[in-house]
Amino acid sequence: SVNPDLASERQTASFSVEGLTTVLDGGAEHTRVRRAVVEVIERDPVFSRENQYFQTQNERYEAAVRKAVHLQKKMHEMGWREDGPEFIYIYRAVAGDVAFLLHRVFMRSISVLGSDEQVAKWIPPATKHQLIGSYAQTELGHGTYLQGLETTAVFDTTTQEFILNTPKISAMKWWPGDMGRSATHTVVFAQLYVHGKCYGVHPFIVQIRSLRDHSLCPGITAGDIGPKMNFEHIDNGYLMLQNVRIPRENMLNKFCEVEPDGTYIRRGSQKINYFTMTTVRVSLLSDEVILPLMKACTIAIRYSAVRRQSKLNPGEEEAKILDYQTQQEKLLPQLAAAYAFHFVNNYLHKLFDRGYKEIQERNFNSLPELHASSSGFKAMLSQYCTAGVEICLRACGGHGYSLLSGLPSLYTKILASCIYEGENTILLLQTARFLVKCFAAASAGQPVPQSVTYLAAVKPGKCPAKNKLDFLNPDIYVEAYQHTAIRLSSSTAAKLQDLIQSGVKKHEAWNQCTVQLVQAAKAHCHYITVKNFVETVEKLENKAGIQKIMKHLCDLFALHGIFSNAGLFLHDGYISGAQMDMITASYLDLLGVIRKDAVPLVDAFDFTDKSLNSALGSYDGNVYQRLYEWAQKSPTNQQISPAYEKYLRPLLHNKLSKL
Amino acid sequence: SVNPDLASERQTASFSVEGLTTVLDGGAEHTRVRRAVVEVIERDPVFSRENQYFQTQNERYEAAVRKAVHLQKKMHEMGWREDGPEFIYIYRAVAGDVAFLLHRVFMRSISVLGSDEQVAKWIPPATKHQLIGSYAQTELGHGTYLQGLETTAVFDTTTQEFILNTPKISAMKWWPGDMGRSATHTVVFAQLYVHGKCYGVHPFIVQIRSLRDHSLCPGITAGDIGPKMNFEHIDNGYLMLQNVRIPRENMLNKFCEVEPDGTYIRRGSQKINYFTMTTVRVSLLSDEVILPLMKACTIAIRYSAVRRQSKLNPGEEEAKILDYQTQQEKLLPQLAAAYAFHFVNNYLHKLFDRGYKEIQERNFNSLPELHASSSGFKAMLSQYCTAGVEICLRACGGHGYSLLSGLPSLYTKILASCIYEGENTILLLQTARFLVKCFAAASAGQPVPQSVTYLAAVKPGKCPAKNKLDFLNPDIYVEAYQHTAIRLSSSTAAKLQDLIQSGVKKHEAWNQCTVQLVQAAKAHCHYITVKNFVETVEKLENKAGIQKIMKHLCDLFALHGIFSNAGLFLHDGYISGAQMDMITASYLDLLGVIRKDAVPLVDAFDFTDKSLNSALGSYDGNVYQRLYEWAQKSPTNQQISPAYEKYLRPLLHNKLSKL
Repeated sequence: SVNPDLASERQTASFSVEGLTTVLDGGAEHTRVRRAVVEVIERDPVFSRENQYFQTQNERYEAAVRKAVHLQKKMHEMGWREDGPEFIYIYRAVAGDVAFLLHRVFMRSISVLGSDEQVAKWIPPATKHQLIGSYAQTELGHGTYLQGLETTAVFDTTTQEFILNTPKISAMKWWPGDMGRSATHTVVFAQLYVHGKCYGVHPFIVQIRSLRDHSLCPGITAGDIGPKMNFEHIDNGYLMLQNVRIPRENMLNKFCEVEPDGTYIRRGSQKINYFTMTTVRVSLLSDEVILPLMKACTIAIRYSAVRRQSKLNPGEEEAKILDYQTQQEKLLPQLAAAYAFHFVNNYLHKLFDRGYKEIQERNFNSLPELHASSSGFKAMLSQYCTAGVEICLRACGGHGYSLLSGLPSLYTKILASCIYEGENTILLLQTARFLVKCFAAASAGQPVPQSVTYLAAVKPGKCPAKNKLDFLNPDIYVEAYQHTAIRLSSSTAAKLQDLIQSGVKKHEAWNQCTVQLVQAAKAHCHYITVKNFVETVEKLENKAGIQKIMKHLCDLFALHGIFSNAGLFLHDGYISGAQMDMITASYLDLLGVIRKDAVPLVDAFDFTDKSLNSALGSYDGNVYQRLYEWAQKSPTNQQISPAYEKYLRPLLHNKLSKL
Repeated sequence: SVNPDLASERQTASFSVEGLTTVLDGGAEHTRVRRAVVEVIERDPVFSRENQYFQTQNERYEAAVRKAVHLQKKMHEMGWREDGPEFIYIYRAVAGDVAFLLHRVFMRSISVLGSDEQVAKWIPPATKHQLIGSYAQTELGHGTYLQGLETTAVFDTTTQEFILNTPKISAMKWWPGDMGRSATHTVVFAQLYVHGKCYGVHPFIVQIRSLRDHSLCPGITAGDIGPKMNFEHIDNGYLMLQNVRIPRENMLNKFCEVEPDGTYIRRGSQKINYFTMTTVRVSLLSDEVILPLMKACTIAIRYSAVRRQSKLNPGEEEAKILDYQTQQEKLLPQLAAAYAFHFVNNYLHKLFDRGYKEIQERNFNSLPELHASSSGFKAMLSQYCTAGVEICLRACGGHGYSLLSGLPSLYTKILASCIYEGENTILLLQTARFLVKCFAAASAGQPVPQSVTYLAAVKPGKCPAKNKLDFLNPDIYVEAYQHTAIRLSSSTAAKLQDLIQSGVKKHEAWNQCTVQLVQAAKAHCHYITVKNFVETVEKLENKAGIQKIMKHLCDLFALHGIFSNAGLFLHDGYISGAQMDMITASYLDLLGVIRKDAVPLVDAFDFTDKSLNSALGSYDGNVYQRLYEWAQKSPTNQQISPAYEKYLRPLLHNKLSKL
């Protein structure tokens, strides 16, 4: 039975929860398919995550391999195809704890970078899992700077082979998933040398383990890189190559090839590769960045409606902690952000679908915008959502700190998204470089991509708002975000220009502006997110109840952003101190308004109890009972610790102690 | 041999590293004692943390119990006494991984709350570890709000016993350390009932496990609460009591007693208890909050001087990542904060020593100030240092995410300090309540404690700085911090007053101001920290080199605080936008200045490699070699996973697969 404190929260919803779920899913049919997939996965005991918090790294790995293998069978059994409607929900339903994700990257890289012959040779056995692939790019000494990779591939014309080597310890491949213990093959990125000349980094297919008995192939040293903050289920690995010979045909050669005599040929456009990396960044946002924040909000908000602590007014019963303003101020902006990011993710996907169509027609014009968008939003969203999950964790006090709350593992996992697929600071500087260029172009009256046309609209001025209600007008706050984004791009571009004109070398000048360039990139992404949220709300006109609550969330997201970054808005007087007080007042008012619908707003995310895997966040709110039941399953309660016989008993019965 | 990139950093130190270490330790004699303790502990293999990152929760617990027992022997052997000069360094040297810390709290609570008879009965066997104590205060349903505890202790006049019960699941004791598997006794906090009347929460000594065979005593249910984000080595436990009878003498009765006929007597002052809790908050700051940040800075800064990635200028070799402005902007403010907090911790200890002397003379006047200070600084420092450790972790990219970097465990452990010993938001509101009261008193011309006399100095105005160099004048920035702290306290006090005068109930009005009250409390602590740093630097006048670099760090800490909280300073125009640009320029300049001494500045913290336990942070900078060596020791590399035989081989040899 549902905890009455939680049940009462649901009786007063100002909107249809099911209707909002449908909006989030993008239509009732998607909701139906998603639920069907989730039901099938969760009914199958192999996919259970019940013991996840109690398992060792070895046990997690074993379970993940088991799930990956079982998933193949399941998909076959259910008729779920990789191009079918169910596919996008499978990973969400399995909740990440599955091996062989790099196998997919291995296949994708062959599909994209391989010739027709290579695709024909490798993809069918890979599809049938007759081999398991990985993707060996990152080295101990190089992550973000791919040009600096140190692994070598020297072409030997006499044998028509490439000889791969790890010339020094920093050149060791390090981090590739599925490589430490599972993979039989991998795509190795190495510096290509022919006749003593280096042609830069190229991809090579290398077998690393025997298909017969899984032993390491000659010249291969490989293993697991050990414990990490999360991803215990993945065998991130290391790989050293000593004179490993592979045939000439194993260099992925759609875009460049070494001919038998050693002639190096480059053909076609490399730009499409670039696009592949870009799309990965966008495709991970939903499952790896936004969903974890939605889950954390669900757990923390449900718990905060059940947890009662201290009294708001003397003589009353203890208050739900969600009724304290400070608790609302922690959680509700995260909830608003989860919605904002869900919608901006839709925007990004539309941007990419359009770009992809153009690219298929050999029009590469949108690549810079797509690259800048994928970089900036990946960085902004991962950083924001990571901070948000941490806030949710802390907001649950001691119980949030227990693994059984589900929050620590959400946090330690999402944290990685700030680092992988491009470290966030580097990515924001990519976006900033695009902004500085577009600002210069826009200032010179040249055309710029659609998402940055606003940069041409430089106009000093003041925010026209007169009272706190004016700040609930989207025109007012969108204009404020736009103004600030322009100011940061333009002032940093000006500083850069000044430095260069004063004689500082171009690269050094860039370095001296990077702290501010990062600010500019964030402000740009923040502006686009707010603007997109406003536009999304406008389109909900035929769903009055949902539109109203979404408008509140949009306002909250926008005003929280101004409140938390007040300096950026006050700096040039666009917002005055008095207006900042109005913003603060409206912002705090909104917390009280949204608090009433907080539980229905997280219910609409439609996570099952199993997918949350949280003793605090279940739909029924029976948190204390569940914490107790789950704790009893811990291995720490399954046996008398040897510590008693070895150390405690001698101590307690100690006759020698003279302390 | 030391990595040449790290060696070169040390050749150019602008100050004496040993001299600075001595300053940090508070004198050469302290440095000598500390190093002697560290050497003894680290030479002893029982205290080794070599395998820490590979151990399960059960193994960590066993090792911690072993260490605790061994430590008793070691102290005896070395002649280290609890009141000796070595004692404060032992915990630091063991690096936290030791059991029975709650045994000390158990003993302290008996010493403070027990009668002379109780002390005489319990302290000698506890000192000899003939029993192991815990401290059972927190329940599943109640943490911060002690008045709400639900465990009951009913006095039975017929048997002269208290009958303890856990009336419902939320009343179960939950979290007490050393209780899940080790403790034989515990102090239980319960609501005292005599003749049906409740007298509030009181402490009772309860035996929970047999001294003979460690089995649970009748009526006791106890166990481990399961996995947590850290503290795997501690058996945080749960405890249920069913009609557990204890003699009347087991209620700790220095301050209140139940007489045989049930008469309840309260005597003496309870204030001193209050003071004990307050001192715990201050005493944990050094080991649990500031040292972890110092360690994280040491690891991240040494690594950043060794890690080379990408190029600052085309054609040059790859640059040390510490030479990138964005990396400096992540790490160097954390370094400055570590120094700032070390010095403010000294200030707090002096404040408490003075307060303690007064209290011994029965003068309790300083209690409110001490309580407000311990609350505010515990919250501010734990929050700041937790964020700082996370920044250091992220700044090390993928390798920072490996447990072998040492950073994840520093982070997951320090995060708990934001929650335990008072949740930070609650604590900041305690400080704010003190500030609001003092502001009212100061405004009315009444005397206020020394640390808040500044609140009387309300004066509108503008910052007089004319150029960026003016912001390196401590008078300028201390004044800015003071102005902002006053503004936040006074404006929130005014808002509170307005609400109450407009008819809002007092408690409701308080709740509506809490977001801003928290801001005010933080600003107060930030101001005191900056002011104290300035005063500390002034006192270093006879150490010119050290004074100079400390002045730079002090400037950096202060300007970073303004840069990161720009809105607070710009709000009323005390700092103008143009001045904020000057602050930004000076702040960024300082990064370049301090960067030159960054490695010597962390060397001065004087952590041994063993205490850092980090593959990235060792003194010699051989990071890649160490990562590789340590990874090979991982249990994931010690055996062929059963996953191969069970799942991988059937898959790879699969003839049925028709996918």
